[in-house]
Amino acid sequence: MGAYDDLLGYDRDTQALAQVAGRLAWDQETVMPRGAAAQRAEETGAMEAVLHARRTDPRVGDWLTAAKAPDAAGDAQLREIRRAHDRARKVPADLATALARLTSRAQGIWAEARAADDFAGFAPTLGEVVRLRREEAAALAEGGDLYDALLDDYEPGATAAELAAIFDEMRPGLVALRKRALEAPAPEPVRGTFPAGAQLDLARDLAARFGYDTARGRLDIAVHPFSSGSGDDVRITTRTATDDPFNCIYSTIHETGHATYEQGVDPAFRLTALGRGASMGVHESQSRICENQLGRSRAFCHWLYAELRARFGDIGVADEEAFYAAVNRVHRGYIRTEADEVQYNLHIMLRFDLERALIAGDLEVGDLEAAWNDRFEADFGYPVDRPANGVLQDVHWSVGLFGYFPTYALGNVYAGCLYRALRREVPDLDDHLLRGDPEPATVWLRKNVHRFGARDLPRDLITRACGEEPSAGPLLTYLEEKFGALYPG
Amino acid sequence: MGAYDDLLGYDRDTQALAQVAGRLAWDQETVMPRGAAAQRAEETGAMEAVLHARRTDPRVGDWLTAAKAPDAAGDAQLREIRRAHDRARKVPADLATALARLTSRAQGIWAEARAADDFAGFAPTLGEVVRLRREEAAALAEGGDLYDALLDDYEPGATAAELAAIFDEMRPGLVALRKRALEAPAPEPVRGTFPAGAQLDLARDLAARFGYDTARGRLDIAVHPFSSGSGDDVRITTRTATDDPFNCIYSTIHETGHATYEQGVDPAFRLTALGRGASMGVHESQSRICENQLGRSRAFCHWLYAELRARFGDIGVADEEAFYAAVNRVHRGYIRTEADEVQYNLHIMLRFDLERALIAGDLEVGDLEAAWNDRFEADFGYPVDRPANGVLQDVHWSVGLFGYFPTYALGNVYAGCLYRALRREVPDLDDHLLRGDPEPATVWLRKNVHRFGARDLPRDLITRACGEEPSAGPLLTYLEEKFGALYPG
Repeated sequence: MGAYDDLLGYDRDTQALAQVAGRLAWDQETVMPRGAAAQRAEETGAMEAVLHARRTDPRVGDWLTAAKAPDAAGDAQLREIRRAHDRARKVPADLATALARLTSRAQGIWAEARAADDFAGFAPTLGEVVRLRREEAAALAEGGDLYDALLDDYEPGATAAELAAIFDEMRPGLVALRKRALEAPAPEPVRGTFPAGAQLDLARDLAARFGYDTARGRLDIAVHPFSSGSGDDVRITTRTATDDPFNCIYSTIHETGHATYEQGVDPAFRLTALGRGASMGVHESQSRICENQLGRSRAFCHWLYAELRARFGDIGVADEEAFYAAVNRVHRGYIRTEADEVQYNLHIMLRFDLERALIAGDLEVGDLEAAWNDRFEADFGYPVDRPANGVLQDVHWSVGLFGYFPTYALGNVYAGCLYRALRREVPDLDDHLLRGDPEPATVWLRKNVHRFGARDLPRDLITRACGEEPSAGPLLTYLEEKFGALYPG
Repeated sequence: MGAYDDLLGYDRDTQALAQVAGRLAWDQETVMPRGAAAQRAEETGAMEAVLHARRTDPRVGDWLTAAKAPDAAGDAQLREIRRAHDRARKVPADLATALARLTSRAQGIWAEARAADDFAGFAPTLGEVVRLRREEAAALAEGGDLYDALLDDYEPGATAAELAAIFDEMRPGLVALRKRALEAPAPEPVRGTFPAGAQLDLARDLAARFGYDTARGRLDIAVHPFSSGSGDDVRITTRTATDDPFNCIYSTIHETGHATYEQGVDPAFRLTALGRGASMGVHESQSRICENQLGRSRAFCHWLYAELRARFGDIGVADEEAFYAAVNRVHRGYIRTEADEVQYNLHIMLRFDLERALIAGDLEVGDLEAAWNDRFEADFGYPVDRPANGVLQDVHWSVGLFGYFPTYALGNVYAGCLYRALRREVPDLDDHLLRGDPEPATVWLRKNVHRFGARDLPRDLITRACGEEPSAGPLLTYLEEKFGALYPG
C-alpha cells in the first residue's frame, strides 16, 4: 500500500473513534445517570486524549507529505486530514489542556452567574477564556488574523471581513423590518392543551416527512435539542412544552434538517474525513431551510394547521391565516434562541461584532456588558432588563466558542440562497407542501448539498448548488416579502 | 513521579476507555438504531484496537518492572495490570485479529443454524473457533493446561481440576433431587394479566429494595437482560412477558445483584484495575444470592405475593404456599436460562465437561451433538428433542467463550457459602425479608464482598467473607433443605 492508503486506513479508525466520542456526548445529554458526571468527565477526557494523539501522530505528517491522491475526492480527504493534523499540532499541549480545564470550569461559573444575574461574577473567568483563546488563535494564525483562525474551525475558508460585509448589508433592512413588525398589532398566539406524548408522535411524523431515516437514527428528549453522529447513526433530540406546540415542532424540524444532511452524505465517504457536513454554516443552512423557509411557509402551515386541529382539537386561533401569523409572529424578546426569523440575525450580528472586538483586543471583558446593552437597544429598540437576558444568556463564550456564532447567521444566508435556487428548480413545491410533503425539497437538498459531505469548501458547495456566489440578497428579499406581507404596516 | 505512579496514571486512562467501550456495548443492546450495525462494528473495532495497543504498550512492561507498590492494594493493582498486559502480549496480533473476525462471523452462522435446527451447518465454523481458541490457549498457557489458561480470564487463579472436584461432589445429589421433584405433582403456575408498564414499575421498586442506586445507574429494556459498567455509571436491563411476571422480576433482581456489586466497590478504586468485580464467579454469586437465596426465599415470597396481588389483582394461585411453590417450581425443560435452581447447575456441568474435552482435544466437534444428547438424557432423564433445545441453545461457544460456563455454577457455589455466613451473621434476616427488605443482606455483601473490588483473588475473597474455603457443601445443603421441603417425595 502507498502512503495515501496507509493514511486513509489510519484516519478511518480516527473517524470511528470520533463517532464514539460523539455517541458518548449524546449519552451524556440524554440517558446518563446524574451521578455519573465526574466519572464521565474522565472518560471523555481519555477519549479526547486518544483523538488528539492520533491527529498529531508524526506518521500522519509523513503520510501527508508522501501521499498522492487518486482523484479529486482524494485531494479533499488529504485537505481535511491535513486541516485536523495542522490544527492539533499547532496548539501547544499545555495550552490545549489549560483551555479544556478552564472551559469545563467556566461553564459552571457562567451558569451560576446567569442564575444570580451577576456579570461581574463571571467576568474574570471570561477574561481568562478570552486570553487563552487569543493565545490559541495566535498559535493557529501564525501571523494571520486571530479571529479568522478561530472561525476557520467552524467555517473553513471563511473570513470575518467577508462575513461582516454580508451582515452589514443585511442589518439596516432587518432593523427596519423589525421596527415595522413590532409597531403592528401582535398576532394572537396558539392556545390549547398539547400533551407531551402526542407532541412526540407528531415530532416523529414530522421528522419522517422531512426525510429522516429512523432505521439509522432515533429521537429522544433533551433539555437543549441537538443532532449528533454521522453516517448510519445520526440521532436527534427534541423537547416539549405543554402550552406551546411550536417549541417541539420547530426544534424537531430544525434538528431533522441537520440529521438528514448527515444521513444524506455519500456512503462512500462514511467514516472518512469527508463523511460529515461541510461546515457549521452549511449545516445550519440545512436546519434553517427546513425549519423556516419550508416549515414556516404558508403552504406547509396550511397542512400543519389541519394536522394540529386533528391531533389536539381547538388550538385557539380563528383560521388558517391567523395560524400562519402565529407561527411567524415577530415579538419582543431578549433571548436569541427564542427569536423569530426577522430578529434572529440581529442577535447574531451583535455577538459577532462583540466577539471580534474581544479577540482583536479592541474590547475589554470589563466593558462587554455595557457594549452589549448599547448595541441591543440600538438594534432592538428597547433596553436589556437584566444580564441573564443579555450578555449572560448564551453558554458559548464560557466554553470558549468564539468564531462560532456567525455561522448561525451565515447558515441563514446560505438557506436564503438555496431556497431561491430550490424554488427555481422545483416550481411546484407549494403543491407538495400544501399536503405536508417537503420531499421534493429534501430530495433537491440531498442531490445538491448533502451527498457531497465535506468534499468541497462551504462557499464552493453553496455556489455550485445555487448557481451563484452566496450573498445576503436572497435572504433579505425572502424576509422582506414574507414579513412585509404579514406586517404590511 | 515514580514508575508506579506513572503506570497508575496511564492505566487510569485505559480503564476510562474500557468504560467507554462498555457504554458503547450498552448502547448497542438498548438504543442503537438497527441500521447502524455495520458502522458500529467498525467503531467497536477501533475502540478495541486502542485498548489493545494501550495494554501491550512497551512502557507498561517497563513500568511494571520498575514499579514499587506503596501498599497491599498497590500490589493488587500491579497484579491486575500485569495480568492484562501479559494476556494481551502473549497472543500474537494475527491470531487475535483472526479470532475477532471469526467469532463475529460465527455468531451469525450459529443463529442461522439454531433457527434451522442444523448442527451440521454450524459444526465446521465451531471447529474453527475451537482450533483458534486452542491456539490462543497454547500461547497463554506457555506449556501449562490449555483449559486453565482460558478459565483464568474469567476466574483468576481457578483450575479446572478444582472446579471438577466441586462439581463432581454436587452432581449425584442434584440428579437425585431433580428426579424426586419431577416425579412429584407439578405446582400450579401463576396466571393473570401483567402489563409491561406495571412490571417495569415493580422492577424499579425491586432494584431499589436490593440496593441499586439509580442516581448512578438506569434501568432499560433489552432482549437478553444484562448489567454493564463500573463505578458511578452501572446500568441494568430487564425484559417483560405479559403472561409471566417472574421473567421480569427475577431478571431484574439478578442484574441488580451484579450492579450493586459494581456500585459497592470502594470509590478509591474507581477507574483503576481494581474498580470492578473480582471475577465472573464472584459476580454471579452476587446476582444469584439476590435472585435465589434471597429473592426466592419463603420469607421474601410472603411479601412478593401480597405485592403482586396489590399491583396485578388475582394471580391465579390459591395462597402464599402455592405462590412459593410456583416461584420455585422444578420443571422439565431443555433450556439452561430457563432452568430452576436444582437443574441449573446440571446444565453447566454438562457444558463444562464437554468444553474441557473439546479444548483438550479429547472430543471432536463432529461428535459434540451426540455427546451432548447422551449426557443430557443421563442427567435430566429425558432425551433432547432437537438441536435448538440442545447443543445449539447457547451463543457462548460461537463467540469463543470457553472457560466461561463453569463460572455460572461456581457463582452458585460461592452464593451457597456466602448465604450460610450471612445467615449466621444476620440471624434476623427473615424478619426483614418478610417485609420485602433485603437491606441487611445487601449491607453485609457490600461490607464483605463488594467494597474490595478486584483487590483479592476470588477464592481468597470468598474464604475471608465466609470464614472457610469455598466448597459445594453449603449450596447442596441449602438446595436439599429447600427442595426437600417443597418436594417431600
